[in-house]
Amino acid sequence: MKLIFLGTSCMVPTKERNQVCTLLSHGSELLMFDCGEGTQRQFKIAGLKPTKVTKILISHWHGDHVLGLPGLIQTMSASEYSGTLMIFGPKGIKEKINGMMNVFNFDCNIRIDVREIGEGVFFENKDYILEAVRLRHRILCIGYRFIEKDKRRINLEYTKKLGIPEGPILGKLQRGQQVKWNGNDVEIENATKLVKGKKIAFIFDTIPCESCQHIAEDADVLVSEGVYCSDLEEKALEYKHLTAKQAAQIAKQANVKKLILTHLSQRYKETKHLKEEAEREFGNVVCADDFMEVKI
Amino acid sequence: MKLIFLGTSCMVPTKERNQVCTLLSHGSELLMFDCGEGTQRQFKIAGLKPTKVTKILISHWHGDHVLGLPGLIQTMSASEYSGTLMIFGPKGIKEKINGMMNVFNFDCNIRIDVREIGEGVFFENKDYILEAVRLRHRILCIGYRFIEKDKRRINLEYTKKLGIPEGPILGKLQRGQQVKWNGNDVEIENATKLVKGKKIAFIFDTIPCESCQHIAEDADVLVSEGVYCSDLEEKALEYKHLTAKQAAQIAKQANVKKLILTHLSQRYKETKHLKEEAEREFGNVVCADDFMEVKI
Repeated sequence: MKLIFLGTSCMVPTKERNQVCTLLSHGSELLMFDCGEGTQRQFKIAGLKPTKVTKILISHWHGDHVLGLPGLIQTMSASEYSGTLMIFGPKGIKEKINGMMNVFNFDCNIRIDVREIGEGVFFENKDYILEAVRLRHRILCIGYRFIEKDKRRINLEYTKKLGIPEGPILGKLQRGQQVKWNGNDVEIENATKLVKGKKIAFIFDTIPCESCQHIAEDADVLVSEGVYCSDLEEKALEYKHLTAKQAAQIAKQANVKKLILTHLSQRYKETKHLKEEAEREFGNVVCADDFMEVKI
Repeated sequence: MKLIFLGTSCMVPTKERNQVCTLLSHGSELLMFDCGEGTQRQFKIAGLKPTKVTKILISHWHGDHVLGLPGLIQTMSASEYSGTLMIFGPKGIKEKINGMMNVFNFDCNIRIDVREIGEGVFFENKDYILEAVRLRHRILCIGYRFIEKDKRRINLEYTKKLGIPEGPILGKLQRGQQVKWNGNDVEIENATKLVKGKKIAFIFDTIPCESCQHIAEDADVLVSEGVYCSDLEEKALEYKHLTAKQAAQIAKQANVKKLILTHLSQRYKETKHLKEEAEREFGNVVCADDFMEVKI
């Protein structure tokens, strides 16, 4: 599993930073969190295929988070995307997506399933759960959590010692089912080990609130906006954004393992001060750059 | 006066080429021809201010020519653009722009004057004329011509010799009015010279047609799409685009001075073959790159 940062700017892109877009690559899936203008070109530069995207999770309908959608969908359509593209977002997003498709009346021939979500779990499959909270921005805005499910893995050393061959018996063990071998129960605790799934939280845009705390709780990685340094805390409050320090405080209080700051204001040519401020609150901080990849 | 190429790709952007956008800088004005996705970031990279744009001329409502509009307008609005932004385009564009503004409901506080145009002269001021023709693309599409007006300039060597001081008499001469000096008529032909205005034509997207010929007639510079090499002439016809060779044939027949090819297919990592094909038809060809500037 890895995170790929395709865009890391705030509202105004810079020479170095495209508008915000974060990818989570998990198995054969590519989940996209927000889609700023220019995202389809960032795919090209990163050497990635937009057709790999399976789900797009939109935090809120502000231009710097969604203006890449029409171009991306157009390109996916022209590339003969064969799946169903799921788009999740806050209440009202169906009308927005429909309006967008009408205004930019390209020949779109892909299946799109738009879902308006509230708070709580909104998607679950055998591998992971997706959860949402409502943040506090100027318009309806959602924070997301990706919760990977725990996985039972075969302890091959043990099963080989018992002489269990590869095949259905190992399959059953992996699913946590009781099996017999040579007339005896195989001890699942020894024959398998439970690998804890990872949690990744995504917070932007918002002021500090309890929902931030909740969605970030015990996350292995928290991807959060950290738009300004603390000298602009008032501005952050006015526009309803987090400072780097506030993001770090959330990370600390929520017992997060690693904090990645993104959605950074154009005024910071270097991220040194943002990082330093955050590090005063929380030990493990990285400022994202465009095309940065983080293995999880 | 100069041309600035902010984007030169065809439908799919590449690492090197953003979607199409051409600027014409004339006096204090910046005229924009089409506005592909990512244009506002190209401004940033070029070190130019979007707030300098006075007029946007849209050829047609295909995504790769217009998807940069909402972000650009949003940024102009946030930058306290004080003028009235004029947007010209084919019939139907008013509804599209209105729809776009509704879908991306950003707080836009700039004045926008959208004008649907047919064929012929659609704008004129003391410095230049703008003219349109209808091209032959898959949807309604317009080719443009910028015609700079001739300007009378004072021949200072001559007027100094006569002893005419700077002031209202020179002003009258510059406006082509008859004046007297020391009781004698000043000969306008000697006291001033007429500087011929330049013509710049813009052609994309289309198949070869009489309108191409008409709009390019005697242009100092023809900016034209040259999407493919001739081996893809059938494809060009199918999607209603010009090959580089066809663009050069138009330039030749229309007695153009310089041809600049843009809107180039992603398949050409180098423009060598496009240029060579065009040069077999017409002598003065340049393939545009992003951020290329051409003084006129």
